Amino acid sequence: MPHLRFDQTTADWVVFAPLRNLRPHTRSAEVSNRGAAGVDAPSNCPFCPGNEGMTPHEIDAVRAQDGTGTNWLVRVVPNKFPALQIEEDNRQTQKGDLFRQMGGCGAHEVLIESPQHDAFLGSEPIDHVCHVIRMLHSRYCDLMRDTRFQTIVIFKNHGEGAGTSLQHPHWQIIATPVVPRMFRHQYIEATDYFDRTGHSLYEALLDEELKRNERVIVTNDEFVALMPFASHLPFETWVIPRRQQASFRSFQESQIEPLAHILQEILIKLYVGLEDPDFNLTVDTASRGDEDEPFFRWHIRILPRLTTTAGFELGSGMSINTVLPEEAAKFLKGGNHTLQQSDSHEN
Amino acid sequence: MPHLRFDQTTADWVVFAPLRNLRPHTRSAEVSNRGAAGVDAPSNCPFCPGNEGMTPHEIDAVRAQDGTGTNWLVRVVPNKFPALQIEEDNRQTQKGDLFRQMGGCGAHEVLIESPQHDAFLGSEPIDHVCHVIRMLHSRYCDLMRDTRFQTIVIFKNHGEGAGTSLQHPHWQIIATPVVPRMFRHQYIEATDYFDRTGHSLYEALLDEELKRNERVIVTNDEFVALMPFASHLPFETWVIPRRQQASFRSFQESQIEPLAHILQEILIKLYVGLEDPDFNLTVDTASRGDEDEPFFRWHIRILPRLTTTAGFELGSGMSINTVLPEEAAKFLKGGNHTLQQSDSHEN
Repeated sequence: MPHLRFDQTTADWVVFAPLRNLRPHTRSAEVSNRGAAGVDAPSNCPFCPGNEGMTPHEIDAVRAQDGTGTNWLVRVVPNKFPALQIEEDNRQTQKGDLFRQMGGCGAHEVLIESPQHDAFLGSEPIDHVCHVIRMLHSRYCDLMRDTRFQTIVIFKNHGEGAGTSLQHPHWQIIATPVVPRMFRHQYIEATDYFDRTGHSLYEALLDEELKRNERVIVTNDEFVALMPFASHLPFETWVIPRRQQASFRSFQESQIEPLAHILQEILIKLYVGLEDPDFNLTVDTASRGDEDEPFFRWHIRILPRLTTTAGFELGSGMSINTVLPEEAAKFLKGGNHTLQQSDSHEN
Repeated sequence: MPHLRFDQTTADWVVFAPLRNLRPHTRSAEVSNRGAAGVDAPSNCPFCPGNEGMTPHEIDAVRAQDGTGTNWLVRVVPNKFPALQIEEDNRQTQKGDLFRQMGGCGAHEVLIESPQHDAFLGSEPIDHVCHVIRMLHSRYCDLMRDTRFQTIVIFKNHGEGAGTSLQHPHWQIIATPVVPRMFRHQYIEATDYFDRTGHSLYEALLDEELKRNERVIVTNDEFVALMPFASHLPFETWVIPRRQQASFRSFQESQIEPLAHILQEILIKLYVGLEDPDFNLTVDTASRGDEDEPFFRWHIRILPRLTTTAGFELGSGMSINTVLPEEAAKFLKGGNHTLQQSDSHEN
């Protein structure tokens, strides 16, 4: 049964999910080179149209306006191999003084991004990207109605090196019964900055980056895409709203299309410039209780997996980055990487 | 030039080392499957005997007692592509309020573990393992004489999936001019436990694990190897001294052979049980100023790379572990994995 255990040495909660060992894997001993990652055939793919019976019951979907109502465009289902489950409780138990654990209460959903097995978000029609974003926001708000859930973690893994077990493009949404320590820590830093200066750290960083314009890649009226001054990884890219919103919950309908545009522009630049790199995309957002605070600001982090985390990173928690963000930004902004979309607006 | 940048949102220092992009890589587009990782031929290997001219000057070495003094058994050289350098200063500079950076002051050494290109530490003669450990300790103490260095990070990457760029077995030793935030945080947790209970957290955990004997793999008079209750990764294994020593600096000559034995026993069990898994090994130790504190205890962490860190881990800082440590311990202790050494003593 899934549960969480508390690490007394780091104050981290670790999720234990033995069931996830049963997941299907594209990777095999024979097929480990990157180009062959697409071997899982659509006929066996649980996310392809026609195979809806291979997933648990549908939670929500966007359907084509073709009168039939049968063709879905975006589909949300429970993860068949959940890390956390809505049926579990969040009671804590303790074995002795040191071994504390909690029921694996939470949720683990999959958003199937497209009916097309090999679709790429960067080149989908803009309306389709809007459907995806709107659905992510809708699932966020719905899950937060369960007051046992403290944090909603939204992410996307692209490519085998980013941990994808199924190639068909999808996102995952995990609700946790605890506030991750990493978030607590970031709120403390941001609160501290707010207390000392009276300003939001994220607003100050955004203003300064816009002023210097060395690491900003794309902007529009609602969002800015940039590579942070102290990027932990080569080509780490943030998409951050211009409005003060601590939580993704506060995201407005009028921000959907600008977000869809800027996300596509960045994804295409990375695709062209780095030749379809493996990447993870995460939505960092305030947890329950901090959702309306002025000190934090939700943002998207895109983390290309160009290097392997090794002993120094694991042994110290520090990162070694071999590419300066201002050079990565210059490279991506370079004229060679023309956008393949006519309707994208680069500022 | 290498330097460090301060991430205001997390309070992490990030090392920027553009030079490391020039490193040789075993991996290529043609050779990406695991079995072929050993293609770098000894004739081209900078760590093989005869190629000493391919590395920077020797810092220290253990030589065979064969009268000639030419045959080294263990050799320490500066990393040719250093993340941090002794020649840099540790002055901090600030661009505006938010962008703080520091000179890339530090050290980055390589310990070549054996003259043999495909040696495995688990099956080396025990005397040889003692040479390796004694040399690591000697380098630790020597580097800490430079008072600019705050923390010494010792680690070993085994296998391509663990980030090795050269197959020839080696360790790395990095001295940093800052205390990594992860360490500060662990000291705070341990100090807090000490303040509340009057006991060392690490001693309490060790006592409890020995009493329960569910997750202990091997013990001897000086060390215990166990899988922690809240292991972050499948088969994560700690080797922890029975003596109270916050820092690896306090490590004694009489502990060398017991450490060599227990390390070999664990490495062989992992090799046999998991079929030579890729792994990282780190030595976690107190930083300058905390080296004699009663609350922390240095230890070795062995982290097999059986799964890929993906969006949830990167987005929340939490881990999903699919194997319970008590089951992993039972598996490794299982009768099938007989030690291949006659002189090892399992208690």
